Amino acid sequence: MPEQPDPQAIIDLLGVLAYGELSAFDRMAGDARMAPTVASRAALSQMAAVELGHYGRLTARIAELGADPQQAMAPFVAAVETFHARTEPRSWGEALVKAYVGDGLAADFYREVAEYVDASTRELVAEALADVDRTAFAIGEVRSLIDADPTAAARLSLWARRLMGEAISQTQHVAAERDALAMLIVGGAGDLSGVAKLIKRITDKHVARMTAIGLSN
Amino acid sequence: MPEQPDPQAIIDLLGVLAYGELSAFDRMAGDARMAPTVASRAALSQMAAVELGHYGRLTARIAELGADPQQAMAPFVAAVETFHARTEPRSWGEALVKAYVGDGLAADFYREVAEYVDASTRELVAEALADVDRTAFAIGEVRSLIDADPTAAARLSLWARRLMGEAISQTQHVAAERDALAMLIVGGAGDLSGVAKLIKRITDKHVARMTAIGLSN
Repeated sequence: MPEQPDPQAIIDLLGVLAYGELSAFDRMAGDARMAPTVASRAALSQMAAVELGHYGRLTARIAELGADPQQAMAPFVAAVETFHARTEPRSWGEALVKAYVGDGLAADFYREVAEYVDASTRELVAEALADVDRTAFAIGEVRSLIDADPTAAARLSLWARRLMGEAISQTQHVAAERDALAMLIVGGAGDLSGVAKLIKRITDKHVARMTAIGLSN
Repeated sequence: MPEQPDPQAIIDLLGVLAYGELSAFDRMAGDARMAPTVASRAALSQMAAVELGHYGRLTARIAELGADPQQAMAPFVAAVETFHARTEPRSWGEALVKAYVGDGLAADFYREVAEYVDASTRELVAEALADVDRTAFAIGEVRSLIDADPTAAARLSLWARRLMGEAISQTQHVAAERDALAMLIVGGAGDLSGVAKLIKRITDKHVARMTAIGLSN
């Protein structure tokens, strides 16, 4: 692990997380309209508002580090938008699974990178991770959907695999284009086989989350 | 002014405000995607998140009063959705003017009804009104748009009139269907000529806001 991570890598990291959160906010807010009840719509909306709170803290940290948040996010807009364009939920179940999978992956990513960054950034990451209860709602709703219609499990499992595939695909694009960010992760992970191990850890956690929600991988 | 307002009227009032706020949340969150910069997108998103906060407080108050928030909102879903379906912004300028006009009308409505309700509800209304700075952003942005393209003023003025027309039209539908709510407002205003005066006050304030933002009425 490098003692002093490349400052550009930290800015990149905060930039991609910030744009990811802002984008998650409005996608989730829109998806919430598919909810069967006003209460469940409000619950997904609340998850969205939490993402916007993270966005605010991430961009504040970018500015604190002397960088421009807009410029920091710019390199990642295309990848994040492509991910969302390819994974537009067409049902409430798909919206819930996307919120759950996306939230889980974001949390894993926050946790992994927290190891490689400076103490202040690590604190911010810990704050973002403190919002732990926000997936409980999605888990309960998906389980109810599957109880009501067992054929939904296979469809939503396929959907979750597609989400994971698109997420990995866009992450690879980003890593290929952003040297400093890739080096931060490679540096932190030790070497290229460390990166493979990181992907393995994140994939394993995804599988565990799928099981928890009643879906297969 | 009646000493004891009809409890059903208070529930109606909180219900229509709650659904209005929830609906404003996701409409505004979606409209934010039209922003020319990530910073302005985040600013409109932040306005949306504030609405969701109000929604949370309003539904909590409905529950405190022993009513079911979902049932309280149900009678007003159609009117609110019709309003939004007929006023979908097609540009960033329209989105901003809608946020500004909608927010201003909501604030006026909160202020008017605060006069007629119990002390606890009045406190909640005051809290909602405390978020005063959220229109400053919209005012600044609309003024810049008009400075950059003076022909935008006429188009956006027309748009603001349409928004006001649709808002009045849907309010009339609601008042016609919800006796208790209509009586609360009529009761508070004194009589039917009081209602006309109320509409006049709200219209006057709308005109003042239009002038403030550089639009004509």
